[in-house]
Amino acid sequence: MNTIYLDNAATSFPKPAGVSDSMKRYMDCIGATINRSVYGSAQDAGLVTLQLRQRLGRLFSFSGPPTHVILTPGATAGLNMILAGFLRPGDHCIVSSMEHNAVMRPLLRMEGVEVDRIPCDSEGLVQVDALPGLFRKNTRLVILAHGSNVCGTVQDAQAIGDICARHGIPFALDAAQTAGHFPIDFQRFGLSAMAVPGHKGLLGPSGIGALVLREDFAGLLTPLLAGGTGSASDSEYLPPYLPDRFESGTPNVPGIYGFEAAVRFVEEQGVDALRAHEMELCSRFLDGLADLPGLRLCGTRDLRRRVGVISVDFLHLDNAEAAFRLETEFGILTRCGLHCAPSAHKTLGSFPQGTVRFSLGFHNSKEDVDAALAALRALSGV
Amino acid sequence: MNTIYLDNAATSFPKPAGVSDSMKRYMDCIGATINRSVYGSAQDAGLVTLQLRQRLGRLFSFSGPPTHVILTPGATAGLNMILAGFLRPGDHCIVSSMEHNAVMRPLLRMEGVEVDRIPCDSEGLVQVDALPGLFRKNTRLVILAHGSNVCGTVQDAQAIGDICARHGIPFALDAAQTAGHFPIDFQRFGLSAMAVPGHKGLLGPSGIGALVLREDFAGLLTPLLAGGTGSASDSEYLPPYLPDRFESGTPNVPGIYGFEAAVRFVEEQGVDALRAHEMELCSRFLDGLADLPGLRLCGTRDLRRRVGVISVDFLHLDNAEAAFRLETEFGILTRCGLHCAPSAHKTLGSFPQGTVRFSLGFHNSKEDVDAALAALRALSGV
Repeated sequence: MNTIYLDNAATSFPKPAGVSDSMKRYMDCIGATINRSVYGSAQDAGLVTLQLRQRLGRLFSFSGPPTHVILTPGATAGLNMILAGFLRPGDHCIVSSMEHNAVMRPLLRMEGVEVDRIPCDSEGLVQVDALPGLFRKNTRLVILAHGSNVCGTVQDAQAIGDICARHGIPFALDAAQTAGHFPIDFQRFGLSAMAVPGHKGLLGPSGIGALVLREDFAGLLTPLLAGGTGSASDSEYLPPYLPDRFESGTPNVPGIYGFEAAVRFVEEQGVDALRAHEMELCSRFLDGLADLPGLRLCGTRDLRRRVGVISVDFLHLDNAEAAFRLETEFGILTRCGLHCAPSAHKTLGSFPQGTVRFSLGFHNSKEDVDAALAALRALSGV
Repeated sequence: MNTIYLDNAATSFPKPAGVSDSMKRYMDCIGATINRSVYGSAQDAGLVTLQLRQRLGRLFSFSGPPTHVILTPGATAGLNMILAGFLRPGDHCIVSSMEHNAVMRPLLRMEGVEVDRIPCDSEGLVQVDALPGLFRKNTRLVILAHGSNVCGTVQDAQAIGDICARHGIPFALDAAQTAGHFPIDFQRFGLSAMAVPGHKGLLGPSGIGALVLREDFAGLLTPLLAGGTGSASDSEYLPPYLPDRFESGTPNVPGIYGFEAAVRFVEEQGVDALRAHEMELCSRFLDGLADLPGLRLCGTRDLRRRVGVISVDFLHLDNAEAAFRLETEFGILTRCGLHCAPSAHKTLGSFPQGTVRFSLGFHNSKEDVDAALAALRALSGV
């Protein structure tokens, strides 16, 4: 049985052809690390790394220097770097009620940090008007998921950023589900920091991601890790300059090569074109779902405010059983459960049962969507 | 001009043939992440990850369960996890005077943590007898580099571990330069924790490493990162069980595939055989150096107490110029400078000028050593 991969919100698959080739070329022919040695192959690696930072900066309309595009092991590491590096006991932090545990878990374990959640409607959209009422004297950060990993709902980052700017509060974005899927404008959103993974909509390998830092915010951030940077080697303290200050230890160089090839592909295609394709499929999927009894769509139908992450709650069937049958009887790969986001499921009314999540990518086709709908019809007994 | 790669202490190159193939197979044919979804390809990835943990456990004679072999982005991350996760204000920590900045930088920036350095002799060997006199009432950890990244000197980990055990102090090892190069016995050394990189003597890709944790010590460690683990998804707090507790966020799965293939190769060859080959080359290199005027060897000549990292200080030539000429005139790739280890260079009398470092790997040959010696002869004007 052929399989149809609809788990792109977990990790995108397949990747553009050049990604694994670039990683293999690095592993077989380059091999050097960056920022340590100075021979030719190390310079090749250094150049690819710089190109990656520049490409990411362009993709997100980031006006800062490429040194402020920090390479991380992934979005979770970047979010921890923001939260643990910036917040101190006594601070107040605002999130939404749709957060992933990559924000909630680091935040809730911080001693002395107070947390409020901006309420969201039943489709997962932040009630922007409620934000100003949550600000307190000790509010130091607003951080939230741009797009929901549960239901695909995308927040109005610009409206939230405008409010934060008016109150002088830094605004940070978890763009795990939107980077590569939805236009992101670092300046227009008024961002101080943004964390992205390499392996989702940016179509690179897992194990690499980026943390984009506005210059003034970077100066307020304590690095989460310290160690050798290949620079200032006479000192037992981290250098003050970026990216070194936030990139201790040998980086994931094969990951950098794969990520660079992936972001090159995303740039060449254009986020708008990738998005148009995914939204065409998403529209087809949502239309098909509307005719099906016995299941509930979680999240919004408004294509302007979502990405291609579609969550379904079966009313008369256990969701885990539905996902299992989708795989074993129809070859359709999804992810069921709570998706590391209990707060989002509570907001959407799908806690504790969770949902079956179908998530689209650039490689999916109308035929994939039709096959998924046919399988859902069969499971629903229609 | 052909190049001869003698920078294996920075990162090993080339890797065993199967490493990049395994990464490419994952990227092209598997693609799934682990611990999140349950379909077939995700199970393949989960199995390879388990095999990697088991292989590493065997390689280091670790008697704990494979769950306690934590996968990290590298040795620096693992060392930060030990230091920041375990030490608290008021604690006293003992290191050696030969540490890499991967230990010194995280340690010296911790507020309220006192640090003492066990003195080392001029060849970089820890004066083990001096250790008991350094223990204080608030001593909570001894952590040190097993092998020096500057000069290859290997410490007597068992003797140091015995003393720590007698005093009831946890002992942690930075095995960045010995894992894969020198026999390591987690139990016999009396270790509580050990951090290793994947990309040096273990012959895997950069971006992945391991932190091996004794069970009682693991229970005392606060995770440095928090986030989604694919487990306990109904909770906004980290689960208590390993490895999940210390592995937040999507892991570096292509790195895991490459690392698993690499450690399989190391197991098949055997560390003793790999070491015998490297020590034969090292002996040849040291013998050749003994005849050369105008340069000083840093570190020990005793093959029983070293790995194949050989540092040379040119007496009449700038070391950076020597390294540059070695590359451009002779195609010999080395690393010059302070190697992120100012404390070690001070111990060895090579601060601030640094050294030119030649570091051997399994792929090097007698011809490589002879070419390096011939180049050194030419530079020395002999």
